[in-house]
Amino acid sequence: MESELQPSSGIFEGHCHLFPVRVYYEDTDLSGLVYHANYLKFCERARSDLLRLLGIDQRKAHEDGVGNYAVAEANLRYFIPARLDDSLTVQTECVELKAASVRLRQRLMRGGDLLVEVTVRVGFIAPSGRPRRQPDEWRKAFDDFFVKDPE
Amino acid sequence: MESELQPSSGIFEGHCHLFPVRVYYEDTDLSGLVYHANYLKFCERARSDLLRLLGIDQRKAHEDGVGNYAVAEANLRYFIPARLDDSLTVQTECVELKAASVRLRQRLMRGGDLLVEVTVRVGFIAPSGRPRRQPDEWRKAFDDFFVKDPE
Amino acid sequence: MESELQPSSGIFEGHCHLFPVRVYYEDTDLSGLVYHANYLKFCERARSDLLRLLGIDQRKAHEDGVGNYAVAEANLRYFIPARLDDSLTVQTECVELKAASVRLRQRLMRGGDLLVEVTVRVGFIAPSGRPRRQPDEWRKAFDDFFVKDPE
Amino acid sequence: MESELQPSSGIFEGHCHLFPVRVYYEDTDLSGLVYHANYLKFCERARSDLLRLLGIDQRKAHEDGVGNYAVAEANLRYFIPARLDDSLTVQTECVELKAASVRLRQRLMRGGDLLVEVTVRVGFIAPSGRPRRQPDEWRKAFDDFFVKDPE
Repeated sequence: MESELQPSSGIFEGHCHLFPVRVYYEDTDLSGLVYHANYLKFCERARSDLLRLLGIDQRKAHEDGVGNYAVAEANLRYFIPARLDDSLTVQTECVELKAASVRLRQRLMRGGDLLVEVTVRVGFIAPSGRPRRQPDEWRKAFDDFFVKDPE
Repeated sequence: MESELQPSSGIFEGHCHLFPVRVYYEDTDLSGLVYHANYLKFCERARSDLLRLLGIDQRKAHEDGVGNYAVAEANLRYFIPARLDDSLTVQTECVELKAASVRLRQRLMRGGDLLVEVTVRVGFIAPSGRPRRQPDEWRKAFDDFFVKDPE
Repeated sequence: MESELQPSSGIFEGHCHLFPVRVYYEDTDLSGLVYHANYLKFCERARSDLLRLLGIDQRKAHEDGVGNYAVAEANLRYFIPARLDDSLTVQTECVELKAASVRLRQRLMRGGDLLVEVTVRVGFIAPSGRPRRQPDEWRKAFDDFFVKDPE
Repeated sequence: MESELQPSSGIFEGHCHLFPVRVYYEDTDLSGLVYHANYLKFCERARSDLLRLLGIDQRKAHEDGVGNYAVAEANLRYFIPARLDDSLTVQTECVELKAASVRLRQRLMRGGDLLVEVTVRVGFIAPSGRPRRQPDEWRKAFDDFFVKDPE
């Protein structure tokens, strides 16, 4: 029975990673809609799931002092608001891959509707806070996932 | 393919509702552990899922001006901290059922370990903020779920 | 005595609004730094304070069904991370003023250091969710504050 | 001018610590009221301010590997909900002082009205996660503050 009881987990569909999110009370504000900053949380959950599926262990890298990803840049366009109980999908594509950073395009969808579009650049940083080349095997994992010719 | 892509959803096992939660960066603080207030969010997600499975539509009740549940009391005992990437299960039982309120016992588990135990009393309130009898069909739905002889 | 006990409140300095923020445990994540989405909360607190100082009552406008501001666009550049106990200042300038929207530039400073730069476009929306001209007196309040020739 | 621009800071009044909190959009949910878990954040801000006023440097203790306080138990009674823009005061008293833990009673007030009453027991823990005697100077600082005969 426990086997069917798993937290949300994403899947790959070609060069796109899909991740499901449910909207709860905690995500809304008194406007009745999702609070604008919380879409960044949904995107971060999707990126964490993506790393897990790529075989990248963020927690181990942090605990071993290797480093971690940090957001260097985020751009959000809000088109349609999400509401309580909505079931959303975060679509993530990798649109730029460099030695020490990755740029991702993330779209929050409700069915066929684009609610919010986010582009995020994350850089790998050493525990000192300085930029560092991401581990080779991480870069390789991203390389397969990378969209070579994004529109 | 979309059929397999669903947000976390719980199940019933006898008088117990089980709901899976993954720990993300947003949930942790600089101690490296989950921030203490966030366990209340996990519990609320589980209760929302429970209502959904019982056929109770919180959002409609709110939009139609019927009312909503509000937490009247919460007691938390923290035993073992949760960490990034942990996969947790929230076990929820109904231990008291009254005309206008419900008392639930919620246990946050990691495998067989009890991390946090929470008891929550939620009352049904009208849009005015006053206590109100919960809708009959909601009470009936809870009645089946109610543990008649809690230890 | 109560007179000295006031929550954080901002001030105007020319065309700039300054608002103080303290970093608490809730704002950090296991990296030991402020979680990236939380800077948007700091910016929103500053905007709410700015509205209050301009004599705009957001809560009343919401309760009276007039409408409220919603974020349409946000762009963040992260330069230096903030840490627990840091005392920050959010500097806010209005760089574009239209009938139904306002564009603001917000800089999170720690002393003389720029930590995060945010530009936000907020639109006024009716309870229906549709864009609406902001109330005349709100627009007038913003007009004085507006930087006519931003660099 | 910068001198008047300070984040919220509390004061002592006899054996009671008073700390001001403003309610922002981020604190509310679609009920229009403050989300129940967020009162724990307000209480934690007050405790952090209290430690700062007692001369206790949480961040240094964490960075030096001495340890940190962790919540072991929290009990909340919700009486009256807080709303957007409310100016609240958190009243904190120390009602039990032991070698490795402290029990605090925290009341969230809006003027003379008690909104939420919280009792929290925080234990000092080593980086290993094990309970540890709190540093002597911290205990001494709390001793003065301790209410010897709480009603």
